[in-house]
Amino acid sequence: MRRVRYSVAMSLDGYIAGSQGESDWILIDPEIDFQALFDAFDTLLLGRKTYEATRQMGSVGGMPGMQTYVFSRTLRPTDYPDVIVSDDPIGTVTTLKASVGKDIWLFGGGVLFRSLLQLRLVDAVEVAIIPVLLGGGVPLLPPPATLTKLKLIQQRVYATTGTVALEYAVA
Amino acid sequence: MRRVRYSVAMSLDGYIAGSQGESDWILIDPEIDFQALFDAFDTLLLGRKTYEATRQMGSVGGMPGMQTYVFSRTLRPTDYPDVIVSDDPIGTVTTLKASVGKDIWLFGGGVLFRSLLQLRLVDAVEVAIIPVLLGGGVPLLPPPATLTKLKLIQQRVYATTGTVALEYAVA
Repeated sequence: MRRVRYSVAMSLDGYIAGSQGESDWILIDPEIDFQALFDAFDTLLLGRKTYEATRQMGSVGGMPGMQTYVFSRTLRPTDYPDVIVSDDPIGTVTTLKASVGKDIWLFGGGVLFRSLLQLRLVDAVEVAIIPVLLGGGVPLLPPPATLTKLKLIQQRVYATTGTVALEYAVA
Repeated sequence: MRRVRYSVAMSLDGYIAGSQGESDWILIDPEIDFQALFDAFDTLLLGRKTYEATRQMGSVGGMPGMQTYVFSRTLRPTDYPDVIVSDDPIGTVTTLKASVGKDIWLFGGGVLFRSLLQLRLVDAVEVAIIPVLLGGGVPLLPPPATLTKLKLIQQRVYATTGTVALEYAVA
């Protein structure tokens, strides 16, 4: 069965973006195989805020071979033909998981993660810990959320930047 | 020179205690050599809230061979003869760092860490990442704080519990 994987870069103090959405603190380690990462997925899930942030950097909807779902109650689907706008994360993700395909990349943000986690629809949490204390920003998991146990599956250190990649299964 | 090391257990989402101060989510891995950890230090630094939380679990002030400093503007030193109460973290920590001794354990909490970090008085950040999403609680570093770059010095995985110990120097 396809897995939903929340795969993000995170500061040591638990933020996935700065308070203004900044990502300039994220070090790109030359050893990270982004092609292999992208090849593992064919579907992206984004919350509305994350989608709008990524649009400002260039449309993630246009990523080749990747179908993008944006969850929002306010965006009009006809305004965003590159992506599928859905106001029903439970139904959409449940259907996606039951269908055939590669893994599903929960790209962010934290509010969408919290909703899907609570519904037991997230299979893996994968963080690349950047060696920085950000001091504020968009949390990995916005409080309040219920306690969730994880199981460490894999870890790797990227020596050039000191990035630590940790992969957990949701227990 | 003695180092001030902020050495704590942390949930993956960046909390060092639950919202009511809970620590029952912290897994104790049998491979962790606590004796070696304690032997590296002869001084403890605690914020007032952390001190009061540890007193409820048994006095940390009575730890053999460890001198304990509690930073508070409100506690009366005469009420707490087991520890040294100080209202001057900068002066006290600067003096301690310049004196002879083992390393200094910044035990918590996050507010004290933030103050000392801003004053460049913290040398190392050492987190044992427990495989759990806590969903709320006492942050490793309470926002807002300024961005601080770190350098990864060492990492180790404790396989029984899936705890990941990361040691950083403050860059």
